[in-house]
Amino acid sequence: MRFTIQQIAQSLGAEAAGDLELTVTRASEPADATADALALAMSPKYAEELSAGNAEAAVVWPDADWRAMGLKAAIFAPRPRMAMAGVTVMMDAGQGEGQGIHPSAVVDPTARIGENVSIGPLCVIGANAVIGNGSVIGPHCVVGIDVKLGENAHLREMVSIGARATIGDRFRAQPGVRIGSDGFSFVTPEVSGVENARKSMGDSGDAKAQSWMRIHSIGAVEIGDDVEIGANSTIDNGTIRNTVIGSGTKLDNLVHVGHNSRVGQDCLLCGQVGLSGSVEIGNNTVLGGQVGVADNLFLGAGVIAAGATKILSNVPDGRVMMGYPAVKMETHTEIYKAQRRLPRILRDVDALKKAVSKLTSSD
Amino acid sequence: MRFTIQQIAQSLGAEAAGDLELTVTRASEPADATADALALAMSPKYAEELSAGNAEAAVVWPDADWRAMGLKAAIFAPRPRMAMAGVTVMMDAGQGEGQGIHPSAVVDPTARIGENVSIGPLCVIGANAVIGNGSVIGPHCVVGIDVKLGENAHLREMVSIGARATIGDRFRAQPGVRIGSDGFSFVTPEVSGVENARKSMGDSGDAKAQSWMRIHSIGAVEIGDDVEIGANSTIDNGTIRNTVIGSGTKLDNLVHVGHNSRVGQDCLLCGQVGLSGSVEIGNNTVLGGQVGVADNLFLGAGVIAAGATKILSNVPDGRVMMGYPAVKMETHTEIYKAQRRLPRILRDVDALKKAVSKLTSSD
Amino acid sequence: MRFTIQQIAQSLGAEAAGDLELTVTRASEPADATADALALAMSPKYAEELSAGNAEAAVVWPDADWRAMGLKAAIFAPRPRMAMAGVTVMMDAGQGEGQGIHPSAVVDPTARIGENVSIGPLCVIGANAVIGNGSVIGPHCVVGIDVKLGENAHLREMVSIGARATIGDRFRAQPGVRIGSDGFSFVTPEVSGVENARKSMGDSGDAKAQSWMRIHSIGAVEIGDDVEIGANSTIDNGTIRNTVIGSGTKLDNLVHVGHNSRVGQDCLLCGQVGLSGSVEIGNNTVLGGQVGVADNLFLGAGVIAAGATKILSNVPDGRVMMGYPAVKMETHTEIYKAQRRLPRILRDVDALKKAVSKLTSSD
Repeated sequence: MRFTIQQIAQSLGAEAAGDLELTVTRASEPADATADALALAMSPKYAEELSAGNAEAAVVWPDADWRAMGLKAAIFAPRPRMAMAGVTVMMDAGQGEGQGIHPSAVVDPTARIGENVSIGPLCVIGANAVIGNGSVIGPHCVVGIDVKLGENAHLREMVSIGARATIGDRFRAQPGVRIGSDGFSFVTPEVSGVENARKSMGDSGDAKAQSWMRIHSIGAVEIGDDVEIGANSTIDNGTIRNTVIGSGTKLDNLVHVGHNSRVGQDCLLCGQVGLSGSVEIGNNTVLGGQVGVADNLFLGAGVIAAGATKILSNVPDGRVMMGYPAVKMETHTEIYKAQRRLPRILRDVDALKKAVSKLTSSD
Repeated sequence: MRFTIQQIAQSLGAEAAGDLELTVTRASEPADATADALALAMSPKYAEELSAGNAEAAVVWPDADWRAMGLKAAIFAPRPRMAMAGVTVMMDAGQGEGQGIHPSAVVDPTARIGENVSIGPLCVIGANAVIGNGSVIGPHCVVGIDVKLGENAHLREMVSIGARATIGDRFRAQPGVRIGSDGFSFVTPEVSGVENARKSMGDSGDAKAQSWMRIHSIGAVEIGDDVEIGANSTIDNGTIRNTVIGSGTKLDNLVHVGHNSRVGQDCLLCGQVGLSGSVEIGNNTVLGGQVGVADNLFLGAGVIAAGATKILSNVPDGRVMMGYPAVKMETHTEIYKAQRRLPRILRDVDALKKAVSKLTSSD
Repeated sequence: MRFTIQQIAQSLGAEAAGDLELTVTRASEPADATADALALAMSPKYAEELSAGNAEAAVVWPDADWRAMGLKAAIFAPRPRMAMAGVTVMMDAGQGEGQGIHPSAVVDPTARIGENVSIGPLCVIGANAVIGNGSVIGPHCVVGIDVKLGENAHLREMVSIGARATIGDRFRAQPGVRIGSDGFSFVTPEVSGVENARKSMGDSGDAKAQSWMRIHSIGAVEIGDDVEIGANSTIDNGTIRNTVIGSGTKLDNLVHVGHNSRVGQDCLLCGQVGLSGSVEIGNNTVLGGQVGVADNLFLGAGVIAAGATKILSNVPDGRVMMGYPAVKMETHTEIYKAQRRLPRILRDVDALKKAVSKLTSSD
């Protein structure tokens, strides 16, 4: 597809200058740009590459001297990543899904498929499932019985949604997402070593060896509007109530959300984050990659946890956390600096002991 | 389905009181209960919600004054989570799998399918695979050649089982489970930097850059009875011998079991646990979420590792572990408390140095 | 298949002795060997098992007295794991894939399928996809539009490759691999708490609650020759440029490679490693299991990171790293030893304070 600079600037709500009728078909990094590409160069650090390259049009920083860099047209981006959002959505060439229901799909006759829905090859749509208007279901997806999926969803290939999940509008699922797996919930007939160790903070007591009884998940998964879930992430069903993901929340790849957890609105859970069971998280909270949250904890709104933070106790609103176990980031930094000095302190303490011992004996 | 209070109490082996002929069709949290729901309120903390809600029947704590909370019938649960196991198995509405072999499934004519087996849409069953009586294979599963799967298995959608795996009875696999992926095993023609660094504890030496040769996995995966594996978890084939998961062991989501590892019986491996190659684990051991175990280690029976523990050396029977590197939980707590005091100690040591220096010079 | 000792020795480029016409059909551990098995006993520690077992032929250590252990033939392995590579590739019984295109596969008529390609049951091959000669595509794979897959690839079951990925020769993908998921890239209209916290190292400032705008991934994934990717691992598309995996690099299971990252040649990324966005890694670097790398970092060539290391800053060539945050392994060892001594140091400092206070007052 071909866009004029005018069209792109309008879509971004941005100022533009130069030949606004110039057209481009793709976006590129400044160094790789050809004449048909819009170079994305939203910072002065790209000035040299831009000058050296073949771009004729670019998105540039606000006061860029675009003519000096050999451009015929420029779009000015006050907030670079916002411009990135606008340009990439226009230029996305997509996955080539077809229209309508592919003949190889297995769709239960009781399923209610909305208008302008695309269902890819070899999908399975269960009994009484509802799929909202305009939704696109990629190849090899499984939508379980009694699932309600909203409008304008986009499922990539091999997504599975278990029975009775309810999902809002504009849902996006990357390949291999698992919604509605059973929760990991087991119990021993008598008190177990784990229960003892949790109570005593470290002593598993004299619990005998026992087998595990399964607690079934009779709750489901409930997802708001505008949620996106990354490749091969898993969201378990709740035990009795539902596991909940709030509207506007985004999960990265390989994230694990345990049963009964409730994640607020507009949160980000980065790659490989793990929430064990019954975690509650407020709105606008951001968990960095590989963060872990122990079970039954409350995290407030606007919490930020740096990558690899392991959260073992409740966190109030707005706190920035780091470490294992997680502490306030400034505390972590203080502890960490002290740790780096530790070997020297050991030597200091040894020297002090000698000096004091000498003083004491000579006293 | 509709159950009387009498039926449920009998199934739980629990005492009940009130109108035992009252019927319910589902279970719910106390606050959400309607007249057709059995409220699960196994602790006095639910008393208020129960009184305020519309439940007519509930599972309650042993000495609960159920009439005062407006109930017509009550079941008494001495061990709440055991009651949860009993109620949820009765109330589980399942995934709606059909009966028999779906016409879209691709079943090799040499596969031996037991009685009352359900094979979902678009499954692939390989040559000489054996599937035991009463097993339910969800949609989009792949069962490889020469696989032996026991009786009464329940595979959710999109489970894959590689060639020659042997699996006991009552196996449960959540969506996206991968059994029998090849092990991660490579070798360089000459000694590599990693080999040097492991020997010297930190020096990769002068190993030259080399490419990796593949060691194929000619072992398979061997799984006992009553095992459950969580969504998108992966279990690699062994190199020569089999990778083994003992009877009664349960794995959560996104768990990685490396080649040649042998996990004992009745263990729990929580979400995102990773076992590298050739790890051996005794019976009844519990690894919390995101625990990692380095290769070639032995963990005893009844070991408990708190969430995010990274185990870098062998662990004897019954030990409770925490930290990175893992230490006994009580040692971890002691070190951690000391760490929190570290910044103050630094100031103390500085003050001591000044004081002693003054004393020494005035000496 | 049946091999003579002669054939195996020749294939390994190794010396052999005894009855070179003896045949075996499989490899086994020394203790499990039967007369048709080649025992793999490349270290003197297996001497006893070998003598006790039923093996007639074995791969043994260089100066092994094979006749004394009851063997009729022996192959001598100077580098055991290299021998393992050679023997296992010969003995690998494979997954039983068929020849040609299975009739249940959905192959777009514009796809270009090479010679001697096997496409398994229920695969989906998109428009304009190219599959090189000799490639084997297991059951239930999805190859997207405009994908270029080289020669002699081997995809296990349920692998998905998103639109426009380009992949070299001899690619191997374990079950459930996801290539070409969209990157995790979002932006708020105004400055977010995360941006504030990163700048201030811990203060999220007064950023207001905002929703996330999506940055689409219009780049793809680019993979060199001889790459292998483990089960359920995920590799995201780049935002503008491609995400790149260099030739000869191997990824284990459940690894996450974020958008724009570029991994060099002949690297190993072990189980559950996570690379956030825009990470660059040199050649021959090895990251142990559960290692995490924060976004926009550079790791040099020949870097080694021990399991569970969390890398939060750039790492120069050849460095061996450990810890969270990652430091040089020898620094980590020093800090760790000091930490273990911490509780004692606390007591020492308290004693010193008392002693000095006494000295000062008596001064």
